[in-house]
Amino acid sequence: MKKKRDFRTEVKKMARKAKEASLQLAQLSTLTKNKALLHMAEDLERNQERLIKENRKDLAAGEKARLSSALIDRLRLTPPVIHGMAEGLREVAHLPDPVGEVVKMWKRPNGLMVGRMRIPIGVIGIIYESRPNVTADAAGLCLKSGNSVILRGGSEAFLSNQAIGQVLRNVLIKRGIPQESIQIFPHTEREAIREMLQLEDEIDLIIPRGGEELIRFVTNHSKIPVIKHYKGVCHIFVDETADMEIATRICLNAKVQRPEVCNAMETLLVHEKVASRFLPRVARALQKEGVELRGCPRTKKVLSYIKEAQEEDWFREYLDLILSIKVTKGIEEAIEHIAKYGSLHTEAIITSDYTNAQKFLREVNSSCVLVNASTRFNDGFELGLGAEIGISTSKLHAFGPMGLEELTTTKFIVYGEGQVRK
Amino acid sequence: MKKKRDFRTEVKKMARKAKEASLQLAQLSTLTKNKALLHMAEDLERNQERLIKENRKDLAAGEKARLSSALIDRLRLTPPVIHGMAEGLREVAHLPDPVGEVVKMWKRPNGLMVGRMRIPIGVIGIIYESRPNVTADAAGLCLKSGNSVILRGGSEAFLSNQAIGQVLRNVLIKRGIPQESIQIFPHTEREAIREMLQLEDEIDLIIPRGGEELIRFVTNHSKIPVIKHYKGVCHIFVDETADMEIATRICLNAKVQRPEVCNAMETLLVHEKVASRFLPRVARALQKEGVELRGCPRTKKVLSYIKEAQEEDWFREYLDLILSIKVTKGIEEAIEHIAKYGSLHTEAIITSDYTNAQKFLREVNSSCVLVNASTRFNDGFELGLGAEIGISTSKLHAFGPMGLEELTTTKFIVYGEGQVRK
Repeated sequence: MKKKRDFRTEVKKMARKAKEASLQLAQLSTLTKNKALLHMAEDLERNQERLIKENRKDLAAGEKARLSSALIDRLRLTPPVIHGMAEGLREVAHLPDPVGEVVKMWKRPNGLMVGRMRIPIGVIGIIYESRPNVTADAAGLCLKSGNSVILRGGSEAFLSNQAIGQVLRNVLIKRGIPQESIQIFPHTEREAIREMLQLEDEIDLIIPRGGEELIRFVTNHSKIPVIKHYKGVCHIFVDETADMEIATRICLNAKVQRPEVCNAMETLLVHEKVASRFLPRVARALQKEGVELRGCPRTKKVLSYIKEAQEEDWFREYLDLILSIKVTKGIEEAIEHIAKYGSLHTEAIITSDYTNAQKFLREVNSSCVLVNASTRFNDGFELGLGAEIGISTSKLHAFGPMGLEELTTTKFIVYGEGQVRK
Repeated sequence: MKKKRDFRTEVKKMARKAKEASLQLAQLSTLTKNKALLHMAEDLERNQERLIKENRKDLAAGEKARLSSALIDRLRLTPPVIHGMAEGLREVAHLPDPVGEVVKMWKRPNGLMVGRMRIPIGVIGIIYESRPNVTADAAGLCLKSGNSVILRGGSEAFLSNQAIGQVLRNVLIKRGIPQESIQIFPHTEREAIREMLQLEDEIDLIIPRGGEELIRFVTNHSKIPVIKHYKGVCHIFVDETADMEIATRICLNAKVQRPEVCNAMETLLVHEKVASRFLPRVARALQKEGVELRGCPRTKKVLSYIKEAQEEDWFREYLDLILSIKVTKGIEEAIEHIAKYGSLHTEAIITSDYTNAQKFLREVNSSCVLVNASTRFNDGFELGLGAEIGISTSKLHAFGPMGLEELTTTKFIVYGEGQVRK
């Protein structure tokens, strides 16, 4: 009981400081923010040895705790990873500053000039797992968009995150920016996170990044708005008129380029009129890359040797070299399948037909809908947002990849000349 | 225990139907939606007698339960109120349809054309109190923006809301629109609302409208994103260079035109250099309208006869003919006061100074910030959104009044020619 109370006081104090810092941060000039970002990039590279030393302690503890080799890999800081973090901060420094932009302005019949001005959201809490580079990436995006950030990384990366955070905060101190605008959450207990999720007066937004279990925990306990995506069960529909070469190339890219990420294809839908022509071709290409195929009964008529897909396969985000395949009567059935089993993440159609391309774009309401391009493009950098703090399938506020603009909101501004309401 | 389970099944079934309906609703043509809205307006007026008859039963029950006369007034349906509801629907029919608008489109270096297309949010749950006209207003806005809606009004207006809902649903049936796109929640128990707030897979957004207690209840129990505002502690700062006549007129309008609403002024801040000139003048005007004044010690030096404001007064949303007044050293102290005691709702500055006008607009991050105009303008109609479903101080998604556009989100659409990710 005593411990619980301690968390509450401590976490609240931290969040209050973040809120106070956010008021100053919102007013910083673009130049001040950019110089700090470039300085942070330099200092991360300059402190490479210290970061790697702290990271080794995390790695040793992880090996002792028998973490999977995949997890250990994600945890590891190497000179190229640190260089990548620094380059990420440099890129953010070069992106336009969204704060203060007036996105629209109009005149009312009574002469009032009304506009919408971009402002920071305020204080953002980011709860993530494993990769310590998220610490620098997220801190950079939040600083540029004028938001204070509280970063709670995975307990397995605790010392690495603390070390990265210290480098970043030292730059803030040197440059006269409130150091509380970047805070590394010092607790690993879930109880402490739960306390943080109650602080709706201090924290404006929570972004959880990680496995579905973590995201469900955060959603269930948060009084603060949460932007998230649970999973990406992404589909490609190969239409009757698809160019077979393009369709094969895109399916291969969407499935095997990085099977472990959320915008990889998990289910392939094929128009019945091209099934016998397309399936053997794409199966050959995929199997050459080691992909296991699971098909519906009609798929198995063409690819008799593959495993039969079960009902639960259509809901699965394999995140692995496995693909489920279904033959459909046409675009209608494909769209219905996506509505029923999809996760609103990313879907693509491969077609040469104008009407079907437009129909698919209009009727499929996932966060990103593509014609004749790989699902792997649903990514902040690839779509041209310049950077990405995560992908949202929450629909509210931001739907799809979130860049700097999505870390702001707009307030109404009104220029009057003494008008009163009638 | 049995009852609890019953709610769960029933409420979930309702929400599922709303979700299914929303898929069809998202694809309706603008013409179909507009015709339905005009038809609804007509049928509300045509069924006036039935609505008033059902409303009388609610009123009788309310009087028996000794509801306050203010509450009874808000509950009452009269021919002018019903006409107002019909006119509201007609106005919504004439607003532009936000669904399908492509708000931006750009080209990537690899040739991909990337855009953002407006789509409905999906299923919206609205939880409100008292006024039955909200039933028609909210249903109209949701239909036009392509969203299914579940409406849960106050238990004191139960029969009135059911009757209005029936008129609206009959129009949907006649026009071949899924009737489940407008549903009136049939339960008055809080337990049933709590079940509704768990359905994050079926419902995309909850908008609570009402007292702070209701809104806190909803926020505390919802797994679904909530857009809300708790209260409006709105400020006007009268600067040194303010035109005294304009300042008086605006303060009077902001305080007394409708003291019971969220965008009415609650605290007046006055620059010390004009305190002795402005305070007697504005006090006279306000007291003539019956406003009780409560001042800081410096205010009391000028207006010695008024009550002294206590610390808690600065946090208060009086919603009544009471005003707290503070003399500040200047714009800096005024902005600090607003940051400390404000509710991020609406703040105005009265000034003739260019620099201070711009400084106030930039540094005060409330949902609406005005120069030389009344706080009462923070309203969807007045700011030109055409309509309003509520005001948000949540910062996420929509900050300020929410119109049709704020009931949509955008998806990314991508036109490709076979591009794959490198």
